[in-house]
Amino acid sequence: MALRDSRGTRRPRDHGDPGDAPSAPPPLTPVGDAARPSAAEEARTIVASTNTGTLATLTEDGDPWASFVTYGLLGGSPVLCVSNLAEHGRNLASDPRASIAIVAPKTESDPLASGRVTLAGMAERPAGDELAAARDAHLAAVAAAKYYIDYSDFSVWVLRVHRVRWVGGYGRMDSATGADYAAAEPDPVTPRSAGAIEHLNADHADSLTAMARTLGGYPDTTAAVCTGADRYGLDLRVTTDRGIAYTRVGYAAPIGSYDELRGATVELARRARQG
Amino acid sequence: MALRDSRGTRRPRDHGDPGDAPSAPPPLTPVGDAARPSAAEEARTIVASTNTGTLATLTEDGDPWASFVTYGLLGGSPVLCVSNLAEHGRNLASDPRASIAIVAPKTESDPLASGRVTLAGMAERPAGDELAAARDAHLAAVAAAKYYIDYSDFSVWVLRVHRVRWVGGYGRMDSATGADYAAAEPDPVTPRSAGAIEHLNADHADSLTAMARTLGGYPDTTAAVCTGADRYGLDLRVTTDRGIAYTRVGYAAPIGSYDELRGATVELARRARQG
Repeated sequence: MALRDSRGTRRPRDHGDPGDAPSAPPPLTPVGDAARPSAAEEARTIVASTNTGTLATLTEDGDPWASFVTYGLLGGSPVLCVSNLAEHGRNLASDPRASIAIVAPKTESDPLASGRVTLAGMAERPAGDELAAARDAHLAAVAAAKYYIDYSDFSVWVLRVHRVRWVGGYGRMDSATGADYAAAEPDPVTPRSAGAIEHLNADHADSLTAMARTLGGYPDTTAAVCTGADRYGLDLRVTTDRGIAYTRVGYAAPIGSYDELRGATVELARRARQG
Repeated sequence: MALRDSRGTRRPRDHGDPGDAPSAPPPLTPVGDAARPSAAEEARTIVASTNTGTLATLTEDGDPWASFVTYGLLGGSPVLCVSNLAEHGRNLASDPRASIAIVAPKTESDPLASGRVTLAGMAERPAGDELAAARDAHLAAVAAAKYYIDYSDFSVWVLRVHRVRWVGGYGRMDSATGADYAAAEPDPVTPRSAGAIEHLNADHADSLTAMARTLGGYPDTTAAVCTGADRYGLDLRVTTDRGIAYTRVGYAAPIGSYDELRGATVELARRARQG
């Protein structure tokens, strides 16, 4: 299991040798433009994909306390609404250090294949205009909060993100700074891509195989399945006589919206057949 | 929103008055035997219902760090398998204080209606026979772990649970000691009850209404829906002209297995009609 960072750079194997762990055959030809989302972008996409996470705070003894929370978003900053009577509310009031773990909605049966992220920083009670914006952001994401957000014992908190750790599944992981995370945007394609991926796999298997053979570095591909789509390109799972591998194929240029996905994949298929 | 502890005792409203929050009408007649699972039992049931959670550990600076994990169970103790290279692995090695938040698989659209639990204590690397049992427990719960559990950088940890906080959804919450948690058992009925609940609601609405009227304290029930089943009884959501309320009806005696559920509900329906 080779580790790759968010740009696909191969990192040395550092797990020792477990014997029968799966290993992937390497590409036989150069992989074309396989740009992929940065760790900061991946993190923003995961955080934007749901409204629940788990907060870690410190108890009065300095012990770590994990608790389920809902959140909205101000930019990439999670906005919490928690009771001051609850343990995590009391914890934040006495020590603002906090982190939140967020898991992308499950698409595979193996839970460790899911993307997830940890955002670490300091929780702060917003004031003035930011409080109003934070309150609106929480309500927009968590409809039921209208029933308790104005209770006198509930407070709105914004997590100021100082550090990000993203894990994209097996062997894909990287860190990002709070500044990179704040500057990044959620992917416009990934959250809406399920239908398009299904269509590609059902009706365009030949095109995916051609992409893997001529652009993806696996000329010996016997079958290819699209496993993901984002603004930069497609993730492919490739079957060869040497085993199963994962690769990427990149569009001619990054796309800015979901509506451009069809045109970008048609261009990819045409280019793959010319290759 | 009145708070009730795990035995259904009413606790004082402590949220101030938000104006339009929903409130439930009180029962008009005494509620019969409405024994329900203890907080420790509820926690054991939630923990047994899935294999993923979020771990809170301490970084080298003492900051709280939330991270996604998979787990198996030795009794009620979560068994983790984490890389020593990962941040949470390094954290546990330098400070064993840890907690884990586990959320029951979602059954309602409102995430805060879901049951969840925090188990707090100390992580320990088991040795000897316990290590073998812990390894087996993790593999039984997390099939993919066979690919990495024997990597030299992965370690098995058992969380020794000292303290438990259970939240059953809105207004149902309580704490339990580590000893109570260890002594409790997961509910034998709840995890398999979805089909039976669907059947009760589809085909026995009259019986549920009778239960709510004569056993559940709401003689003015116009409709009742079963929302949960456990070894002690049924949870009912009751519609009255005064509003929506939640109540419980208890079987003649606690049951020890799912197979006894049908007989227990038939007895409840008969008793309700006699009432």
